[in-house]
Amino acid sequence: MRIDGVWHRSVRIDEADGWSVRILDQTRLPWAVEWLRLVDEDQVAHAIRSMQTRGAPLIGATAAYGVALAMRRDPSALEGVCAMLAETRPTAINLRWAIDRMLGALRNLPVQDRTAAAYAEAAAIADDDAATCEAIGRNGLPLIAEIAARKPRVNILTHCNAGWLATVDWGTALAPIYMAHDAGIPVHVWVDETRPRNQGAALTAFELGAHGVAHTVVADNAGGHLMQHGQVDLVIVGTDRVTRTGDVANKIGTYLKALAARDNGVPFWVALPHSTLDMRVGDGVAEIPIEERSPAEVTDLTGRTADGRIETIRVAAAGSPAANPAFDVTPARLVTGLITERGRIPATPDAIAAMYPEKAA
Amino acid sequence: MRIDGVWHRSVRIDEADGWSVRILDQTRLPWAVEWLRLVDEDQVAHAIRSMQTRGAPLIGATAAYGVALAMRRDPSALEGVCAMLAETRPTAINLRWAIDRMLGALRNLPVQDRTAAAYAEAAAIADDDAATCEAIGRNGLPLIAEIAARKPRVNILTHCNAGWLATVDWGTALAPIYMAHDAGIPVHVWVDETRPRNQGAALTAFELGAHGVAHTVVADNAGGHLMQHGQVDLVIVGTDRVTRTGDVANKIGTYLKALAARDNGVPFWVALPHSTLDMRVGDGVAEIPIEERSPAEVTDLTGRTADGRIETIRVAAAGSPAANPAFDVTPARLVTGLITERGRIPATPDAIAAMYPEKAA
Repeated sequence: MRIDGVWHRSVRIDEADGWSVRILDQTRLPWAVEWLRLVDEDQVAHAIRSMQTRGAPLIGATAAYGVALAMRRDPSALEGVCAMLAETRPTAINLRWAIDRMLGALRNLPVQDRTAAAYAEAAAIADDDAATCEAIGRNGLPLIAEIAARKPRVNILTHCNAGWLATVDWGTALAPIYMAHDAGIPVHVWVDETRPRNQGAALTAFELGAHGVAHTVVADNAGGHLMQHGQVDLVIVGTDRVTRTGDVANKIGTYLKALAARDNGVPFWVALPHSTLDMRVGDGVAEIPIEERSPAEVTDLTGRTADGRIETIRVAAAGSPAANPAFDVTPARLVTGLITERGRIPATPDAIAAMYPEKAA
Repeated sequence: MRIDGVWHRSVRIDEADGWSVRILDQTRLPWAVEWLRLVDEDQVAHAIRSMQTRGAPLIGATAAYGVALAMRRDPSALEGVCAMLAETRPTAINLRWAIDRMLGALRNLPVQDRTAAAYAEAAAIADDDAATCEAIGRNGLPLIAEIAARKPRVNILTHCNAGWLATVDWGTALAPIYMAHDAGIPVHVWVDETRPRNQGAALTAFELGAHGVAHTVVADNAGGHLMQHGQVDLVIVGTDRVTRTGDVANKIGTYLKALAARDNGVPFWVALPHSTLDMRVGDGVAEIPIEERSPAEVTDLTGRTADGRIETIRVAAAGSPAANPAFDVTPARLVTGLITERGRIPATPDAIAAMYPEKAA
């Protein structure tokens, strides 16, 4: 990621002390670029739950560093710490994947060796994510280039934030867009604001703006209308969990965009790293747990006044209750295909098993 | 409509002076119940453009009173005033219907007779709307009662505000819900917040709360997920224009809910008065003009802080542009049927022509 011309990763070890963990506070974006310093597993758990850090791949890497911080304090607490961190959010499978990988690397080590091994494994997870996302970008780029060959500008719609703020670097859905932009292809992104937390308006718009990519924020309601009028060439979204059958859990509202894409003949692609696959699950709608978050995220919003104050306001009628399911599941039948670090495939059980034989086993 | 137990109409003649026009300022709801006093056609035009008053049927009736106010000042200005008022908003056809009715009633009268006739015609339009909406409620009620016969609670999803705040009284989509509630049927309404202007969270929730109807505000993104999980029995929405083929223009995002309803076998009904039919239009997606409103409605929100101040905050990243199409068109193929003051019919050209032969002629 690039902020003011400087390249950063979304999670990293503090340069000064060499052991604490730095994350960008995403609840402060886009108003302020603030790097939080996390020193123990409880701070990591709080950061994930409160969405100071978020994005399926990034919470996996951050949780891995949380295990490393815990090992530094008490290497005998491995199992309990991992169980606690794995419960911080229920839908994104990357979190469990990263925790399982940490457990696998550390469980059989003597306690005195666990801290160093934990830092090394967390770093490997982070490096893996950055390299994986870069490969997703390369594999998604031809989808955009093909459209650019026949149109002066490629209009891409995305939902929520699946950019470098959601990963260690590059992003998933946005990686092909950054590469297309850097290759000189004229791209324009319709950014769903992504209520209730506005990750689109606040984070994706911030990212794309920082990188210089042309974009327009729209209400989540607008995507179908834009597609009906030929203003969307391609949809690319990220995901929190993909089943072995190709069902896609992602931010609430993704399913509605997939329906509109199907109704208007717009390709609907899902970008994901291997860590987002959950081969244990078949029927995504029936089986993937959907996080229910606070109703206050729907009824109240935080933003900046014209004179620079940060205020939280209630927009809903006083006394009216709200519900806040945070994800939905798009059935595989609505997904044109998956963009992975190994290539592009249809969202079918056979194609997924063939691309990831080691997971299918 | 009932506020604090007192029955009001959403537009009415001021009781004190007998000629000025009172409207509820809907930009101040749900924080404050304030009745604006309008004294000329320019104030009426401003109230419609700024959405101090809104809702397809209500802006028709309010514009009619705008003509009456103008006649009081200069009865020779009829044509110019009508042209000006008709242009205040482009999508809802009720506005043009009401203006055309005023023109028809006044054009051939001597100027000295126009003022009294204008007030009488505007009152007739308002009375017609109230009676029409009450009939829509009666005709929609059986849809809810049928579901209540086999389920302990009827879950209805609605988008935007099509209640008494959008009409002179009763509402369109909400009229059957009020009647079901008053008849003792346990109804619960999923209220789409309806970004960008939050007519659902601010107005529909306010209305339903004031009437004592159980409801839950959700982000617009949530409806598909709720339907996938059997939590929606019925969708009822209002509309700003229905074509002779049954295509339905309504608040942006309606189309996405219709797609989700179809995908999940949920009935999708549209409630409308006769004044919302536009028999001149065939293909709604291609032909109905869609109002593009200010990008600031997407990037900035107004609400109330915990300590009671009204603040406007920006939620989108600084410098990011936004687009704001205010309506979309749901093709007739996705509409289960239309609820009108004359009865329920399929959204087909034949059924519409048979129900409204005088318009089909």
